[in-house]
Amino acid sequence: MTAGGKGRRSGVDVAAIDKDNTAGMMETYGFPLWCYPIFILVVVLFAVCTEWDPEFGVDTVTKVGDNHIRTVVANTWDSGNVGYAMYMDAAAMCVLGFGMLYTFSKYYVWGGVGLNYFICGFSFLWVNVAKTIVNAIWTGDWVKTKLNLTEMVTGCYITAAILISFGAIYGFTSPAQIILLCFIEPFMMLINEHVVLKNMHVKDAGGSLVVHAFGAYFGIAVAFGMGVKAKQIPSEHRNTTYFSDMGAMIGTVVLWMYWPSFNGATFYNDVTLQGRIVMNTYLAICASCAAAFPTSVLWHRGKMEMIEIQNATLAGGVMIGMICPFDIEPWTAVLIGGLAGVVSAGGYAWYHHFLEELGVTDSAAVQMLHGIPGLLGGVCAAFACLADNHNYMYSYDTTWTTSAASDRSRGEQFGWILLAIVCTLAISISSGLITGFLMNQPCCPTVGKKDMLIDHDFWDIHDLGSDPRSKVEAKDDGAVWANPMAVPMQAVASKKV
Amino acid sequence: MTAGGKGRRSGVDVAAIDKDNTAGMMETYGFPLWCYPIFILVVVLFAVCTEWDPEFGVDTVTKVGDNHIRTVVANTWDSGNVGYAMYMDAAAMCVLGFGMLYTFSKYYVWGGVGLNYFICGFSFLWVNVAKTIVNAIWTGDWVKTKLNLTEMVTGCYITAAILISFGAIYGFTSPAQIILLCFIEPFMMLINEHVVLKNMHVKDAGGSLVVHAFGAYFGIAVAFGMGVKAKQIPSEHRNTTYFSDMGAMIGTVVLWMYWPSFNGATFYNDVTLQGRIVMNTYLAICASCAAAFPTSVLWHRGKMEMIEIQNATLAGGVMIGMICPFDIEPWTAVLIGGLAGVVSAGGYAWYHHFLEELGVTDSAAVQMLHGIPGLLGGVCAAFACLADNHNYMYSYDTTWTTSAASDRSRGEQFGWILLAIVCTLAISISSGLITGFLMNQPCCPTVGKKDMLIDHDFWDIHDLGSDPRSKVEAKDDGAVWANPMAVPMQAVASKKV
Amino acid sequence: MTAGGKGRRSGVDVAAIDKDNTAGMMETYGFPLWCYPIFILVVVLFAVCTEWDPEFGVDTVTKVGDNHIRTVVANTWDSGNVGYAMYMDAAAMCVLGFGMLYTFSKYYVWGGVGLNYFICGFSFLWVNVAKTIVNAIWTGDWVKTKLNLTEMVTGCYITAAILISFGAIYGFTSPAQIILLCFIEPFMMLINEHVVLKNMHVKDAGGSLVVHAFGAYFGIAVAFGMGVKAKQIPSEHRNTTYFSDMGAMIGTVVLWMYWPSFNGATFYNDVTLQGRIVMNTYLAICASCAAAFPTSVLWHRGKMEMIEIQNATLAGGVMIGMICPFDIEPWTAVLIGGLAGVVSAGGYAWYHHFLEELGVTDSAAVQMLHGIPGLLGGVCAAFACLADNHNYMYSYDTTWTTSAASDRSRGEQFGWILLAIVCTLAISISSGLITGFLMNQPCCPTVGKKDMLIDHDFWDIHDLGSDPRSKVEAKDDGAVWANPMAVPMQAVASKKV
Repeated sequence: MTAGGKGRRSGVDVAAIDKDNTAGMMETYGFPLWCYPIFILVVVLFAVCTEWDPEFGVDTVTKVGDNHIRTVVANTWDSGNVGYAMYMDAAAMCVLGFGMLYTFSKYYVWGGVGLNYFICGFSFLWVNVAKTIVNAIWTGDWVKTKLNLTEMVTGCYITAAILISFGAIYGFTSPAQIILLCFIEPFMMLINEHVVLKNMHVKDAGGSLVVHAFGAYFGIAVAFGMGVKAKQIPSEHRNTTYFSDMGAMIGTVVLWMYWPSFNGATFYNDVTLQGRIVMNTYLAICASCAAAFPTSVLWHRGKMEMIEIQNATLAGGVMIGMICPFDIEPWTAVLIGGLAGVVSAGGYAWYHHFLEELGVTDSAAVQMLHGIPGLLGGVCAAFACLADNHNYMYSYDTTWTTSAASDRSRGEQFGWILLAIVCTLAISISSGLITGFLMNQPCCPTVGKKDMLIDHDFWDIHDLGSDPRSKVEAKDDGAVWANPMAVPMQAVASKKV
Repeated sequence: MTAGGKGRRSGVDVAAIDKDNTAGMMETYGFPLWCYPIFILVVVLFAVCTEWDPEFGVDTVTKVGDNHIRTVVANTWDSGNVGYAMYMDAAAMCVLGFGMLYTFSKYYVWGGVGLNYFICGFSFLWVNVAKTIVNAIWTGDWVKTKLNLTEMVTGCYITAAILISFGAIYGFTSPAQIILLCFIEPFMMLINEHVVLKNMHVKDAGGSLVVHAFGAYFGIAVAFGMGVKAKQIPSEHRNTTYFSDMGAMIGTVVLWMYWPSFNGATFYNDVTLQGRIVMNTYLAICASCAAAFPTSVLWHRGKMEMIEIQNATLAGGVMIGMICPFDIEPWTAVLIGGLAGVVSAGGYAWYHHFLEELGVTDSAAVQMLHGIPGLLGGVCAAFACLADNHNYMYSYDTTWTTSAASDRSRGEQFGWILLAIVCTLAISISSGLITGFLMNQPCCPTVGKKDMLIDHDFWDIHDLGSDPRSKVEAKDDGAVWANPMAVPMQAVASKKV
Repeated sequence: MTAGGKGRRSGVDVAAIDKDNTAGMMETYGFPLWCYPIFILVVVLFAVCTEWDPEFGVDTVTKVGDNHIRTVVANTWDSGNVGYAMYMDAAAMCVLGFGMLYTFSKYYVWGGVGLNYFICGFSFLWVNVAKTIVNAIWTGDWVKTKLNLTEMVTGCYITAAILISFGAIYGFTSPAQIILLCFIEPFMMLINEHVVLKNMHVKDAGGSLVVHAFGAYFGIAVAFGMGVKAKQIPSEHRNTTYFSDMGAMIGTVVLWMYWPSFNGATFYNDVTLQGRIVMNTYLAICASCAAAFPTSVLWHRGKMEMIEIQNATLAGGVMIGMICPFDIEPWTAVLIGGLAGVVSAGGYAWYHHFLEELGVTDSAAVQMLHGIPGLLGGVCAAFACLADNHNYMYSYDTTWTTSAASDRSRGEQFGWILLAIVCTLAISISSGLITGFLMNQPCCPTVGKKDMLIDHDFWDIHDLGSDPRSKVEAKDDGAVWANPMAVPMQAVASKKV
């Protein structure tokens, strides 16, 4: 049907092909031109920055008689067991969960799942390099990162933040801009993490602040820095379909079910603490699911709105993130999760479009899923510390109480957590704006307003018709080609003629 | 394209909007009106009924020199390890497996995956409350349920029964009716479980009776109690499509692959027994898959029928459920699984439609997947006890033989198992009929016959056309909008005009 | 809409129904006629060939005071733990990963996921029989296979090879031919495995040669033996759609994320080695993902080609398979993975169509994903042995160094590995040709060239129109019925008339 691959910009506009053939190298090959050098850099930096950890999540085994007795290596003692299964759940959230969630858009299904996949593959590698460099800056010592299960899990956390940022600019960027994002964001996120966790001694087990809020506001700032305004994108491009929303729903339930693993995966040095994290996260995320559905019905005169269900049902996992290792009662976790569901669903219904009018662009509504619930999670933790001085040191935890913060008063810790919220917002927004500005420079191809949220410029799609811009050529059939559910009334009615 | 959210009943019938605006509060807001008070009740009851279990699936760790030695807490000793991974598989079956299986219907894709998701979120919480109350009634003592991994796993089992019941009434209910179902069913199921497991001393490891058969016949009875007759629903609404059936097939394989974890997840206090359960379930479910395909071909003159494949390939996991911890030979497990596949596929082909004529309504054919194989699983277990007096006490098991049933003769246990089957049928059918009757009262919105199996009254769907009832307005295009595969011949042929 | 099941060959050609009713038994019922006797054979052989292993992946537990101390059974000591979770990942790759990957084709979605499912169900059982028989031939002793977790994992490996072969002949075979393939291939694969692993003492942890290359070249040889030429199949049948390719992409990411488990699942007797396998596989598969995307863009003038992404992103897991337990540096794993991505994506773009012209038929391009990278994995391992004499004995491994190969020189092992590559190619291609020849005999129904890659002859599909052959009847609407994305221009333009 189509020759395909006639130049990145060909789309379905036959007349434009000649022009495309003369398009600049950067326009067509910008992505590989960026990727290959960076990939060679990754290989070289891997040699300089990383080494194999022979105690990779390992227990040692001693032979006693005919049996092997397992003794467990300090600090990673459990990682050979449920640690690996929990890592796999967290990885599945990144690759499969976010990947399917990002298939919601009518014309950007391949871009959603495909670029999400690319981000995972590249970032899982790159974060190991970034960690070594940021650590070296902080400590002044160049210490190779020991590659083990812990690094694989934290690789998932950093990648999750990048995927959240990708959600905010979903559909507005070229692959070359995405690799720039993946290149820069881990450094910014690690710097914030060092400040919050190590300098401020604010603990953030599930990453409410350092993963979710950071990722969301970094992404929104990138969109602002790139100068994208959601309002300028043709509204037709922003549609979803009956089937694409079903795919996104599957992604949602994958994220939902694995969330307890995500919050608990790094805590193998204290299984009681890990158990509490798992249980509190489980209760909160069940509650946000149960609360999001009726809230959506309430806001939409009796009907459920798909995008709110996809976001708000997960908000409990974000909001409980910072408080999940705390010594709270089960009902508190249920209540926090329920509030997250109500706030996230109601928030979307109430002011997402208002923010869009103000120029805040957020393609996949990550602010409602990750941003606001992340910040509220920080506030919850602050008040929990105020209520009980055991909480800010995770009372069951024997490792973390050795922190420099153990002589702080409740009020002091309350203040430090609020400061951590401010710090996260400041670093994420400022560095996001700069990153967005850099991504929009001539150094890499950009996407025009009228080409946004369209797969066809970046993928060789044989169904040429599934491009809404073909309307220019044959106005009536735009929707037909693109959307399996929507043959326009005219075509069908034609029989009557 | 549409303003959406113009009242729950708007559908595509523009003329009806005004009428909708005057529809009663209960009609439009019945779901949140039920949900919010129940949710507040859940939070309060959580405070009264549950507490955190500090031994949450936990091993204790002692430091010996530089190493940590793990010693394992009695009764939950392994739960920190593979127990968590097995729980996650069981949860994935509920949320992802059932969720995708229930996307089979042409116009009820969102309802299938979405309401399934809501049921999981709500029930995972609610069952903890229900357990405390039923236990209190049985024992006379009010003991808070200790929240730990075991409770998470049994939460999956009870939720699975609710999801099976949902399969029988799939498409016939409003969300408000669903929450009533979720509210009531756990109590009935727990009462049956107490009678069968504790009073009759009949063991049911994989829940052939207490989960699968109970869920199926409860659901069918609910449909009967609601007065739904499958025959009265427009046949067009009951169609599947090429793509929706593919989605359901993915759900099937998810259920299939995780089934050994579902049957074995609670047996962490005896790993040998757990291993036998896993292996027997694995053999049976492979065999039912291998036997279901040719059986379907045999019944349909050379072609495979999708719905039979989706059901019968899983029947082996149901039928082996009660017998899987028994000390049987591998070939027996293969044979039982194969029979389950043949009976389930042949049963659907042979008498599902006949039952429908008789007024038995079963939207997702749960009787063929869960009902009949569940009952047959009980019969198998009864005969296995008759054959070998080691079997009804799970010979390898050191825990369960302390039961009061250990002095029974083979024949007595045979009788008790048959009685358990009768008891399960009696409790499930009688309580299901009452529940169905309650769900049909004016206390919550119902769905009219001509609106059944349609997503559009409960979801804000922008593809207005994917509603088969739009035929009333524009007869020819009904199928077009709804089904990506089926542009009606006329529309296409029109070119010839 | 259709009566369905009017005989296997009915399709949509109404005129042909009468003829079908007179079609031979074998044509219509060939599949059950093969399946049932084979299934009975499986049950009988299970009684003769297998027994339950009471040490099924089990640790023993001793009671010390109030605690249970776990001691671990030699040789399977860890299998009760992460072993099970890793097995489940490998099973998910077979059932869900391959299943969704094989939904890529426009008219063969059900066949892809459905036959893949049948192959898994049957083969998971059959391989246990095949193992016993091949072992008996090799050792001269009839020893029953002890069913335990190890057998479940190796069952996944053999099934994976069959699924790879299925990829090469995907869409060209009837279900009856598939069961012949499943019947024969495990024997051939196990013979090759015995020769390579036991006679040649060439280790292949991730199965680069004995699983991936064997499966790919066996499948391609089967296609050749069957006389299928890709060029003769109507090109319309070979299309993909926007949605089917999305489904295949989901399958790809499932395979991708679980690959470390696949390569490492059998190594529970040496957790350090297992950790190294997991980490090296993880690095390689991330790198092949990161390298495949830009390579595809480079070959297609700025656009990504979906089939290359689906294949090449996974090639790193194949190519690292043989070398992943070696004591290599992290950067080496990244480099090998990156090369795999470049070679696989570039290879497809460059010479897949050229090979097709030469008569090499490979429906799902398994050569580019499994064949070439598998062979290159062998070459890598050979050179790694040449570079370091610790590598070919897996230096950390205490079990494997007792092999008869421990007194070999580096150069000798280099030679043995190259010989293993030749041996794998020789056995796979020769036995594949014979199998293909047998599958094409009158003993089972075949698929005509013009019916290839079409679901409708084997599935009872109610959307009759989704059959491209209906064009014969009503030329204009062929594409409409079949492809949700492609309502032909004429139908839509008709309004203008």
